[in-house]
Amino acid sequence: MRVAPLARQSGVMVRFRPFLLGPLFNAQGWATSLFNLYPAKGRYMWRDLERICFDLDLPFRQPEPFPQNSLLAARVALVGLSSSWGEELCRGVFRAEFGDGRQIDDSTIIGDILSQLQIEAAPVLEAARAETNKAALRAQTGEAKQLGIFGAPTFATADGELFWGNDRLERAIAWARMGFGPIATD
Amino acid sequence: MRVAPLARQSGVMVRFRPFLLGPLFNAQGWATSLFNLYPAKGRYMWRDLERICFDLDLPFRQPEPFPQNSLLAARVALVGLSSSWGEELCRGVFRAEFGDGRQIDDSTIIGDILSQLQIEAAPVLEAARAETNKAALRAQTGEAKQLGIFGAPTFATADGELFWGNDRLERAIAWARMGFGPIATD
Repeated sequence: MRVAPLARQSGVMVRFRPFLLGPLFNAQGWATSLFNLYPAKGRYMWRDLERICFDLDLPFRQPEPFPQNSLLAARVALVGLSSSWGEELCRGVFRAEFGDGRQIDDSTIIGDILSQLQIEAAPVLEAARAETNKAALRAQTGEAKQLGIFGAPTFATADGELFWGNDRLERAIAWARMGFGPIATD
Repeated sequence: MRVAPLARQSGVMVRFRPFLLGPLFNAQGWATSLFNLYPAKGRYMWRDLERICFDLDLPFRQPEPFPQNSLLAARVALVGLSSSWGEELCRGVFRAEFGDGRQIDDSTIIGDILSQLQIEAAPVLEAARAETNKAALRAQTGEAKQLGIFGAPTFATADGELFWGNDRLERAIAWARMGFGPIATD
């Protein structure tokens, strides 16, 4: 919800790149989300997220179940990002899961989100399930792993620096503009 | 390094309360620090910390070994916090480990830090090892666990809200002043 306006204000170009968390979690030895793995830490993380959404004036509901299978949503986002509606689709998917308590692994829900964007759902869902699109998502997930990514959102700068999480967005934008220090390095 | 000046500016009273991380990590099923448990996440965390220290103009060296046994330092801090020099001792211990690359489990190093504060080391080290002081640290560690704490620093407000990490300090201070929203609740 925050990245696009902040990047625009800062003159930084951002490219959305969907990937699957499951394979990256497995590579770390995590069988599920960190929200679920450790009770005390998980409780804290949900509460933290609730406070953050309150501060940002964003609706929040703890999704049930969590995590949800994001395969379909990521495939559809990938289709959208080669067109003009990809970023808006991403925001719609996050709003559906974390704001409205909807199931994003359900093609009817994804279809609803597409309809709200005035996109005809059927051909998009078909393109999402095409072999080339599936392979492209697998390739992006592999690339995320190569970059050292282990969570989402991660902001990766052109010079390979990683910034993980909403709370690192400002630092990522500043880095993209001028690197480590106050003097431009690019 | 940041909590005392920020709290003072904001009119919020902060009480430093040392505890041991080991038992809290064990309660989560972690055999060591999260900096060590997962390779990709650990590498990211060190880099993140390096950037944060740079931004705050604080010296930083990755401690070797890490984590270090903080038992002695925590016991000495507890002695100091019943006197006037506890907070300064805490800052000295963090600076020694993360800024100067020194071993904080070494009583000579802790003695050096005390000497810099014009505190005679021998009686303090003796008080730190007294049974009542050991028991007091165990009790505070148990209290931290009861509060749901799983890492440090954690800022706990009087109404039981937890804020974990340097990046949550401002929100913790704001909460202590006025709770969830803009209107004071206490």
